[in-house]
Amino acid sequence: MSVNRLFEPESIAVIGASAAEGKIGHAAMANAHLFSGNVYPVNPNASGKLLDYRCYESIEDIDEDVDLALLCVPRHIIPDVIEQCGRAGVGGVVIYAAGFSEVSEEGAGIEAEIVSSARDYGIEVLGPNTSGFINTHQGVYASFVSDSQTVEPGNVSVVAQSGGINHVLMFMASAEGIGLSKAIGLGNACKTGFSEVISHLDADSDTESIILHVEGTDDARDLLETCRSAETPVTVYKVGQADVSEFAASHTGAMVGDYDLYEAGCAQYGVPMVNSCQELIDAGYTLSALPEPAGTNVALVTGQAGPGIAITDRLKGSGATLPSFSPETCDTIEGILPGLTYVSNPVDTGQPPGEAEYSELLETIAADDMVDILMVYQLYEERVDYPLGTLVRIVEEEGIPVVFATNGPTPKVDDGLAVFRSAGIPAFRSPERGADAVSILVEYAATNVGPLAPEAEVSSDD
Amino acid sequence: MSVNRLFEPESIAVIGASAAEGKIGHAAMANAHLFSGNVYPVNPNASGKLLDYRCYESIEDIDEDVDLALLCVPRHIIPDVIEQCGRAGVGGVVIYAAGFSEVSEEGAGIEAEIVSSARDYGIEVLGPNTSGFINTHQGVYASFVSDSQTVEPGNVSVVAQSGGINHVLMFMASAEGIGLSKAIGLGNACKTGFSEVISHLDADSDTESIILHVEGTDDARDLLETCRSAETPVTVYKVGQADVSEFAASHTGAMVGDYDLYEAGCAQYGVPMVNSCQELIDAGYTLSALPEPAGTNVALVTGQAGPGIAITDRLKGSGATLPSFSPETCDTIEGILPGLTYVSNPVDTGQPPGEAEYSELLETIAADDMVDILMVYQLYEERVDYPLGTLVRIVEEEGIPVVFATNGPTPKVDDGLAVFRSAGIPAFRSPERGADAVSILVEYAATNVGPLAPEAEVSSDD
Repeated sequence: MSVNRLFEPESIAVIGASAAEGKIGHAAMANAHLFSGNVYPVNPNASGKLLDYRCYESIEDIDEDVDLALLCVPRHIIPDVIEQCGRAGVGGVVIYAAGFSEVSEEGAGIEAEIVSSARDYGIEVLGPNTSGFINTHQGVYASFVSDSQTVEPGNVSVVAQSGGINHVLMFMASAEGIGLSKAIGLGNACKTGFSEVISHLDADSDTESIILHVEGTDDARDLLETCRSAETPVTVYKVGQADVSEFAASHTGAMVGDYDLYEAGCAQYGVPMVNSCQELIDAGYTLSALPEPAGTNVALVTGQAGPGIAITDRLKGSGATLPSFSPETCDTIEGILPGLTYVSNPVDTGQPPGEAEYSELLETIAADDMVDILMVYQLYEERVDYPLGTLVRIVEEEGIPVVFATNGPTPKVDDGLAVFRSAGIPAFRSPERGADAVSILVEYAATNVGPLAPEAEVSSDD
Repeated sequence: MSVNRLFEPESIAVIGASAAEGKIGHAAMANAHLFSGNVYPVNPNASGKLLDYRCYESIEDIDEDVDLALLCVPRHIIPDVIEQCGRAGVGGVVIYAAGFSEVSEEGAGIEAEIVSSARDYGIEVLGPNTSGFINTHQGVYASFVSDSQTVEPGNVSVVAQSGGINHVLMFMASAEGIGLSKAIGLGNACKTGFSEVISHLDADSDTESIILHVEGTDDARDLLETCRSAETPVTVYKVGQADVSEFAASHTGAMVGDYDLYEAGCAQYGVPMVNSCQELIDAGYTLSALPEPAGTNVALVTGQAGPGIAITDRLKGSGATLPSFSPETCDTIEGILPGLTYVSNPVDTGQPPGEAEYSELLETIAADDMVDILMVYQLYEERVDYPLGTLVRIVEEEGIPVVFATNGPTPKVDDGLAVFRSAGIPAFRSPERGADAVSILVEYAATNVGPLAPEAEVSSDD
């Protein structure tokens, strides 16, 4: 339960709070200032007020049991501070400092001391060696990176092994107008790791989709089992296809080198894997926004053949099926648009159809029993409207997930994409990103549709 | 030589010019209107003026030998129009209409007739079944797609088999602030194909880099040989890893299914291959902006370990080497930044160094004989400037290509990227896109550095 006090605090203390610009204790205070609950700057050398908050000499002087303490203090005094937090009834701490198990035996010793003391007091620990986390819906910006507060609330949650990647993902989501619920950088994960955080997010009503950045863990099997048992869709970006173990060990102390194990486990458990931060954001957003597809059959409607071929190529490569439509659907299509360029699946509409014909075409295809997922691509053209209303109707009334992609002049297309996204339809400025979003739905459906093979067990001994 | 008159015209006729919105002849006139040379609307039913240009009943009525005629007329009258163009001394035509070899025997017959007649008269033919081309430096927007004129002049040229993909690439470049020189959609390529166009662009002083979208050709060997012999770097996006042959045949009549042949040929000839439109644009831009690397050794300097590990993973996967620095370089680095997080390659600077130290660090690394390419990643932080001046100096004075990547809040980061790009440094808003740009340099260097193996011959019989 104490992980709730860490990630959903009602009060925050900043230990090592500072008025000096450039210090982590200053940046953390600036971000904590956005929090609407109680905020307590703690610094033995400070007195008076900091950003209008009364300063405390010690966490033990505060009248309430603080939920979350941000430790902006040097490595060597952290064990003492944890003891103080324990006596003060703190629920969870974030340790920003580095220099622990990732660098030396001595550091590993201090880290073990912290874990032992935190266990005794029942304190959850994020880090050490992390840039922190954010919880947008409750205004908690427990990070020392500037501009973290620019991330908008949404329904995707991030769990990144690296604090740096956590911020990459936060800023990428922000740049695309995609909101986040929580974004958590684990760092060394000395006590609170993937499993605890994923389980917490799975129960979080603000989280519809979880995305993971993984360098490596001691217990891949446990992580994979947690992903499998989560009700919320999980997508994984596992770094380490090539040998990056030396550098990674110096970073978060992670054991890297089990890429194949993750690949096999994720395939088996229906956990889509991606290969970049951008794909991870796109995947998380797509799974958060759309209903779960009933299967892996995709219908593609494209206004231009070239992008349609590139999309088809990518979809087939990811295991999607592009089934033939029923004879009735084909007849209806030919009735709506006689002389259509290509009446099979994909459907190439060629010259843009009129609004009513286009709507009827899309609704006919979405209503075909063979279709589980609909993707639509069209180049922006001044005199053609995007079929937004029809696509929203298809998602809401038919329960068919829909992905839209387009290209065209800035800012007209940016405005168009923003409208799609605010209506809940994932929309991308690239044929391939659209195809990849559909592929994620396909991968997610592929395993979740059928029963798990009984012999399907991932072994971490592989 | 006649391909020059097609792509670098001094006069343009629009055959089938129209005042009616929604017609191709209207859109083509609107785009031709931007051209500073002579423009001649041609329409047997028109009289008077169109957009201030005198209308002609026939191309044969025009006093000068027109360089480029845009044929905005239906399929069945095109053979006649080609005859008229031949008698009128036209240099090249663009045929927008579809319905030729890609759809039927009858269409193939008409296409053959066109080719034969164009050969007799020495007319070059772009298309049929294309949306045309643009030549930004000369203000030629010979496309019927709206907003084509928003593409800025630059040094990358596009050759796309699909007119649709040509416009995808145009708009993607535009959205990134990347300028183009020519962007040409081949369509059915009945007479003017990849080889003629690539040779033309190779000799074009405005083109520093050529990017190709390929569905398939009858003569892959000829295309690969043309890429090899070009002085200008060429990058290829070959669609058709999965089976898309039926749909592709209905599009441009292309033979798809030789992906492995392209892969082998490109690897052998030092032609980088990519897997999406975005990667193609990034690759073309990177090769156009930077000096050719002397080898495949990459130095990576990162402010954050997590993105650095993701970049290293990707670089190693693409065949890059991250060599150790010389002992002197290591000593100097440790002198500049004592207690650095990770002093090997990649260099993890950890907390941002001061401006002078950062500059010295980067210059020391770039000056190491082991380093052919430098990549720098750092998260945006309010109090840290990007090392733009230093990186420009490294490119200009050391001749070392440099790629920069970052993430951070919009619009601060967008502004930063724009400044980098206008200074000639490829800069990306993603660790992986930055890594992919470096990988392109590595792949390009890999073959061009060493001699070609004598037995290295691509056979199209494979």
